[in-house]
Amino acid sequence: MEPKKKLINAADSCVDEALCGLVRASGGLSLLKGHRVVLQSDLEKLKGKVALLSGGGSGHEPAHGGYVGAGMLSAAVAGGVFASPPPASILAAILSLHNAGASGVLVIVKNYTGDRLNFGLAAEQARNHGVAVDMVIVAEDCAFDQPSKAGRRGLCGTVFIHKLAGALAEEGRPLDQIVSKVTEVLKGIGTLGVSLSPCSVPGCLPSFELPPGDMELGLGIHGEPGIKRSKVASADEVVKTMIDHMTNPNSQSHLPVKSGDNVVVCVNNLGALSCLEMAVVTRAAFMCLEGRGVVVARVMSGSFMTSLEMAGVSLSLMKADQETLRLFDAKTSAPAWPNLSSVCVSGRSYMTVPRAASTRPQDEQHSEGPLSPVMRKALERICSTLSEKQEELNSLDRASGDGDCGNTHAQAARTIQEWLRDHVVPGCPGKLLSVLAGLVQEKMGGSSGAVGFLHFVVIHAFFPPHSSTCVSEIVLMNLNILQRHLSFRYGGAEPGDRTMLDALCPAVDELMKLTTAPPGGELAVLQAAVQKAALGAESTRNLTAKAGRASYIAAERVTLPDPGAVAVAAIFRAVLESLEGQK
Amino acid sequence: MEPKKKLINAADSCVDEALCGLVRASGGLSLLKGHRVVLQSDLEKLKGKVALLSGGGSGHEPAHGGYVGAGMLSAAVAGGVFASPPPASILAAILSLHNAGASGVLVIVKNYTGDRLNFGLAAEQARNHGVAVDMVIVAEDCAFDQPSKAGRRGLCGTVFIHKLAGALAEEGRPLDQIVSKVTEVLKGIGTLGVSLSPCSVPGCLPSFELPPGDMELGLGIHGEPGIKRSKVASADEVVKTMIDHMTNPNSQSHLPVKSGDNVVVCVNNLGALSCLEMAVVTRAAFMCLEGRGVVVARVMSGSFMTSLEMAGVSLSLMKADQETLRLFDAKTSAPAWPNLSSVCVSGRSYMTVPRAASTRPQDEQHSEGPLSPVMRKALERICSTLSEKQEELNSLDRASGDGDCGNTHAQAARTIQEWLRDHVVPGCPGKLLSVLAGLVQEKMGGSSGAVGFLHFVVIHAFFPPHSSTCVSEIVLMNLNILQRHLSFRYGGAEPGDRTMLDALCPAVDELMKLTTAPPGGELAVLQAAVQKAALGAESTRNLTAKAGRASYIAAERVTLPDPGAVAVAAIFRAVLESLEGQK
Repeated sequence: MEPKKKLINAADSCVDEALCGLVRASGGLSLLKGHRVVLQSDLEKLKGKVALLSGGGSGHEPAHGGYVGAGMLSAAVAGGVFASPPPASILAAILSLHNAGASGVLVIVKNYTGDRLNFGLAAEQARNHGVAVDMVIVAEDCAFDQPSKAGRRGLCGTVFIHKLAGALAEEGRPLDQIVSKVTEVLKGIGTLGVSLSPCSVPGCLPSFELPPGDMELGLGIHGEPGIKRSKVASADEVVKTMIDHMTNPNSQSHLPVKSGDNVVVCVNNLGALSCLEMAVVTRAAFMCLEGRGVVVARVMSGSFMTSLEMAGVSLSLMKADQETLRLFDAKTSAPAWPNLSSVCVSGRSYMTVPRAASTRPQDEQHSEGPLSPVMRKALERICSTLSEKQEELNSLDRASGDGDCGNTHAQAARTIQEWLRDHVVPGCPGKLLSVLAGLVQEKMGGSSGAVGFLHFVVIHAFFPPHSSTCVSEIVLMNLNILQRHLSFRYGGAEPGDRTMLDALCPAVDELMKLTTAPPGGELAVLQAAVQKAALGAESTRNLTAKAGRASYIAAERVTLPDPGAVAVAAIFRAVLESLEGQK
Repeated sequence: MEPKKKLINAADSCVDEALCGLVRASGGLSLLKGHRVVLQSDLEKLKGKVALLSGGGSGHEPAHGGYVGAGMLSAAVAGGVFASPPPASILAAILSLHNAGASGVLVIVKNYTGDRLNFGLAAEQARNHGVAVDMVIVAEDCAFDQPSKAGRRGLCGTVFIHKLAGALAEEGRPLDQIVSKVTEVLKGIGTLGVSLSPCSVPGCLPSFELPPGDMELGLGIHGEPGIKRSKVASADEVVKTMIDHMTNPNSQSHLPVKSGDNVVVCVNNLGALSCLEMAVVTRAAFMCLEGRGVVVARVMSGSFMTSLEMAGVSLSLMKADQETLRLFDAKTSAPAWPNLSSVCVSGRSYMTVPRAASTRPQDEQHSEGPLSPVMRKALERICSTLSEKQEELNSLDRASGDGDCGNTHAQAARTIQEWLRDHVVPGCPGKLLSVLAGLVQEKMGGSSGAVGFLHFVVIHAFFPPHSSTCVSEIVLMNLNILQRHLSFRYGGAEPGDRTMLDALCPAVDELMKLTTAPPGGELAVLQAAVQKAALGAESTRNLTAKAGRASYIAAERVTLPDPGAVAVAAIFRAVLESLEGQK
């Protein structure tokens, strides 16, 4: 097994290069020459104020360098990946702050043996240099019912302390006041993590194995596995499990949170969870807390204390009174602090009612006609066909697009099926067309597939064996509309461009013969049209995509037929089968 | 093959829940009832100003809802994952902005068929309602030398347009002026992406396969593969390839950037790249650009336009004059806009020189003694042993910690080897101890392993067969120092706690017998000590961790010996072998 490939230059240099990337991109930061230390670039502003220093192993970006700035840290010391920094660099950072005129230095350390040892040694050495130093240890992990001698770990809750202590220091408070306030706040902070994947130190194998579909609860931020493994549950259940565990009074490391308490919530991406999942988990977190009567005062959601590329999330809660919230809301120039609003999350009205008249298609009463049962059967057949073909269409789409063509069509099918359940099918094909087009426009998004050809799904469903002229005109009219939609302004497709038009146009050409077909010959025309659609879909194998998403992919990769064209052919066949079955 | 497990509740509900998570957490946002539309909650502030609307498929979070706020978008419309939103919702959003008193609505659309179709239809319908609407299409993809009829795709560069148009609208500029400015700026924007992994729509299989170690260049943000596949190269090379491709004048979609141009750079995480890698890539981007004489005015680095959990990155460049930078720097309350500094990246001094006296151990001249060659050989043997055992120690550490124990020891070995290359080994063991301790403190971070027991590495290397009393006193003294370091304040370990002390203490007890050993009996004592160390290391299999990182892991999972104890035993053996070899 090889270590995972990463987008770095070398395992040895990645920490220094990452620090360089952070500092150079951020106008307010500088590097201390000869050390892995990020400093505020305007050190003179520290004069007479308490300076704040934190740090620890790398691999937790944006921690800790991203929290350096007015109103948060004055300096951050980085070690190697997941390794505590050497005392000499910590001491050099402390002395730089002292020499800049800081009235004292508060060292904020996450509770790990290496960090306590190295930051503690440096703090002692700094005291020997005459610096007023104090140290705060953050140990807010809620994983262990009975923490070991090493104590609870320091996790993402540390960022709360950076923020509050930073706001106090910026206000000019003395060292002892800051220590006393954050020591008090620390009692009301708890954190718990969960992950769907391990992570790996650059150049090393993953720190643990986790089969797909499993998750680890209660893990740390250095790749160590958690306290419990289980199957991945729903986001709501996972969050409930986490908050239950964090607040369980039977655990020695629980956080007592009761109804009526105000809390700040930090939903922290451990590295590689998608932002979509993060937002779902964020919702789950405040729904769960509000369900217990807790007032969610603020929510921060993003990457704050990562564990390399771990696909997981940690929840940190901080009990907060008005003074704590005031400090939390204070401005900072630290580049990793998010653009938060200072409005209380719980109790806020967040729904706007559209003032415009509803754009919903009028649900007017339609009357049935002799064709209604025929068209209903055809529509039902189309819908069941599209549902059956969901995975086949997805699979074709994966080869050339985003792999959701089957889902889009299946969703269209469900939308129409639901509508069919409590509506009559109008006897007039034009009316049905208009109703379904409105339905599709309201419910469906997606590409031209969704909007454009669902017009045709509908039209062909209305194919009435004995009023062919009228219908083929509708077909033609709608083909024109579709081509206009796909025209220069909104897309630009033509037959031959490897789109659904390659199945649709030859079939429609065939259907035009309905106008001249002898009585009783309509079915033969329809059969021919179905064949043309199938041939047209198959022919897209050899076409180079010039429109739609497949046009963005190298031609040699695209050897399967276009999923949109395949769907069109399937719809034509479904209509035919429906009509044949009703003869 | 099963679709990948995600931390969501259901594929069908994840988009709505994610929107709810975003909006509820952000005091300035609201949802338009009945639609997937995020609005500024203070719509009355739009009165008389141009309102900005954008949107598109979901799966690109924080786009687009995260960019809603004063100074950026007024509204964002979301579709399903990677699917364009329905025109009815877009229209409802436009009408809401119009009804709030906006003087006009600018629709900003990424160039995709579905988005052009649906946003275009809604804009036309809004015009029929009497709304002053204009539309800007962003098509800044640099992937294709010869773009297809569909044109260049709209990618992360769209965020620049949100920001600039938002600043102009906030200043009260009329619709035509805003359109004219952003149309001009658009000509100077280009984007290219690269990824080490595919992504998968919730409930679907990955959109393409990518073997480990391969990467895709020039991909879009909907899971479609890129224009070229290759082996993962170094970050610097990958970035050079990207910028070469983006600026290649032979490509019809290139961005002409020449020496002296000012650019804003956006380094965009496509979803699951670690923040460490992101920072390395960020550095590579401005190093590469500055190497071509380009002035990097601003850098934004983070997740701005993601593609679910794709482990990749896109680079967007925007040529920027002073007016563009002024608009870029303008304040916004949009929750996804980062806390940027407005200092020019290129040309800024970012290195602070420590004002304090160097904390480097004085490199004073030491004189050799009769023991120097013996100690040098022992040190060399220890270093080569630790290098050989790197992967074995990493592997033990993966079972109980972060998997880097071998790396830490190998790095220590390299540090000592480098030092040995251009220094004499002092004849006085105490001096050597002090020099090496300083070296280790300066160069090494890591846990107690690094600092604490490297004292012992050194001590045992100095084991002088004929001055045993003096040395065993040093051993004892240093054992005391080590235990103090690991004491309550900085860690709390004792023998029996499953740490390196379990190998070290029994061996040192044995070594104490040197004080009473008969002349010539020293080697036998040392052999016994080596055996005790090995037994002690082996005994840690059955011990429950009470300190160090292994204490955070369920005892039943930890069945291998402690890596620190194994390393201590190996060091003892190396010293013995070295002395035996020199007899």
